[in-house]
Amino acid sequence: MRAMVLRGRDLKIEEVSLPAPGPGQVVGRVLACGICGSDLHYARFAGDLRYASRSERGVLSNADTAAGVVMGHEFVAEVFEFGEGVTGWQKGDRVVSMPILAPVGGKPGQSIGYSSEYPGAYGEFVIMSALLLLRVPDSLPDRTAALTEPCAVALHAVREAALPAPTEVLVMGAGPIGLLTALWLKNDGHRVIISDPAEPRRRLAKTLGVDIALDPTSEGSQVFSERPPEVVFECVGIQGTLQEAMEHVARRGRVIVAGVCMLEDRIRPLLAINKHLTLQFVLGYSADEFTESLAALAEGRIPGERLITRSVSLDELPAAFPDLANPHDCKVVLQF
Amino acid sequence: MRAMVLRGRDLKIEEVSLPAPGPGQVVGRVLACGICGSDLHYARFAGDLRYASRSERGVLSNADTAAGVVMGHEFVAEVFEFGEGVTGWQKGDRVVSMPILAPVGGKPGQSIGYSSEYPGAYGEFVIMSALLLLRVPDSLPDRTAALTEPCAVALHAVREAALPAPTEVLVMGAGPIGLLTALWLKNDGHRVIISDPAEPRRRLAKTLGVDIALDPTSEGSQVFSERPPEVVFECVGIQGTLQEAMEHVARRGRVIVAGVCMLEDRIRPLLAINKHLTLQFVLGYSADEFTESLAALAEGRIPGERLITRSVSLDELPAAFPDLANPHDCKVVLQF
Repeated sequence: MRAMVLRGRDLKIEEVSLPAPGPGQVVGRVLACGICGSDLHYARFAGDLRYASRSERGVLSNADTAAGVVMGHEFVAEVFEFGEGVTGWQKGDRVVSMPILAPVGGKPGQSIGYSSEYPGAYGEFVIMSALLLLRVPDSLPDRTAALTEPCAVALHAVREAALPAPTEVLVMGAGPIGLLTALWLKNDGHRVIISDPAEPRRRLAKTLGVDIALDPTSEGSQVFSERPPEVVFECVGIQGTLQEAMEHVARRGRVIVAGVCMLEDRIRPLLAINKHLTLQFVLGYSADEFTESLAALAEGRIPGERLITRSVSLDELPAAFPDLANPHDCKVVLQF
Repeated sequence: MRAMVLRGRDLKIEEVSLPAPGPGQVVGRVLACGICGSDLHYARFAGDLRYASRSERGVLSNADTAAGVVMGHEFVAEVFEFGEGVTGWQKGDRVVSMPILAPVGGKPGQSIGYSSEYPGAYGEFVIMSALLLLRVPDSLPDRTAALTEPCAVALHAVREAALPAPTEVLVMGAGPIGLLTALWLKNDGHRVIISDPAEPRRRLAKTLGVDIALDPTSEGSQVFSERPPEVVFECVGIQGTLQEAMEHVARRGRVIVAGVCMLEDRIRPLLAINKHLTLQFVLGYSADEFTESLAALAEGRIPGERLITRSVSLDELPAAFPDLANPHDCKVVLQF
């Protein structure tokens, strides 16, 4: 099959082989797959992930980019072929799945999209575990269903924050995760300020119903010095933004860190101590949160379609990657 | 009066004037004052604190070391003279106080020991707010009563951690704050592992009833790789120890950061994200916690006396400062 392969730091379309589906596994024909900022970071900083690998606790730990990795974990696919013992699914069923392969026959579980053994969904086919499949409602377009995964990431951040009552929160970053976080927060009745240096993203945030969209490079400090937010969602994940979040949040406040900063970062612990802050790092989601995200997209409670600014073909995918930082793009989706 | 003055980074005994006590204030003759690691950091890195000052939220923010600061905030004193309107106290009463001066006559509150206007207790006299005074029980020796403040710091860290049930915790650092934290945790029924590179401090920890005292430079990783602790108390506060705490703690664990790192520090957010960690920075204590600490020292529930390895005179104080890192010392107390 054709797929985009990451080798070292190069992204190229290649012909790759697909492993046969093991017991309980299903081969899906990929219909759409969102391009995730983490993949961009991963392609750029994969060497750095060896560190997480050494810690033996990371979910992004079992890939070897030198051997070639097909990324892609925000996918929707059509059931195409079955491994042994799979029941309840028919060829052509549209499904999404958490990007995890359940352990099978003594083999440990793996993440889909960060594995050297199984390809992720930046290719024509993907292997999934039948137990984890969720049926996509007919009304939901392919490319919107592909938002289930980032939508669950955002829901998880909001659920982990466990805000006791409607309040005013700051979301840093109006990329897909920041905007989806803002949408879940709005659904829960909170007042949401979003900050992003890119004007088109701030405009998009406003049309999505975010209360205030501000430019952190010019407006941040003035806005927050009077009544700083109790909770800040850090959805950027580049060097320096964690410290910025610590500066914006109120005394005794919390920073929910959803942005994945791949590099070593610098903070001023004295500020965090003086302000008695809590930094809560979050990752992933539960099966429940993934299921709820699919439902919310299908019911329009989360207007996912409006975050998608562009679809690309597999051949256009390698070039689309460096373009992700383009402020005129928000979510870009690979579509077959 | 004679006092040790910090000017820039120099510590010298000087003759300084004591402001007259304002309404509601009391002049105390200092009996003893603990030497705090924060003061050592402060003397070394005072320039850096301008940063906290800019944030306008720090408690250590209102001093100008160029103009001269008399530090010292872990004190016990004898009531010596009264300002207007003070009742209920007699000359000679032994007291401790949280190191705070309440606002008076339109003047904002100040911290005692980090102010350019009022001297702290590294001198013969200190000014206190009558409202905050606590009577020291007769049975409690001066130098042990001087431990009330660090004892409250440790109690606050333990209370903020709000451990739901007896568990196994790691305390990093067997200095006074680490040991006092360990003692409060033992009082609450937890199993406590303490880590410190200094053998004499590990030995002291063992005699105080800590379950395991290990050397992080040789034993840390092996001990924790099997069953990492859910909660780690970071009581060191130097560059790198926060990252170490993140490495030791279990997935979904919490690091309670009680060590005050004055300098910019480096962390790997990816590790915190992959492990879904919470970093909880804590500072200070409540009036209740301060009161409880005094009671616990008086009743022997916290055997404070055993942490004190040495008393020094005012003239010996400047030389005692750089010596604080001496692994054979634990708590050093200025005694008059």
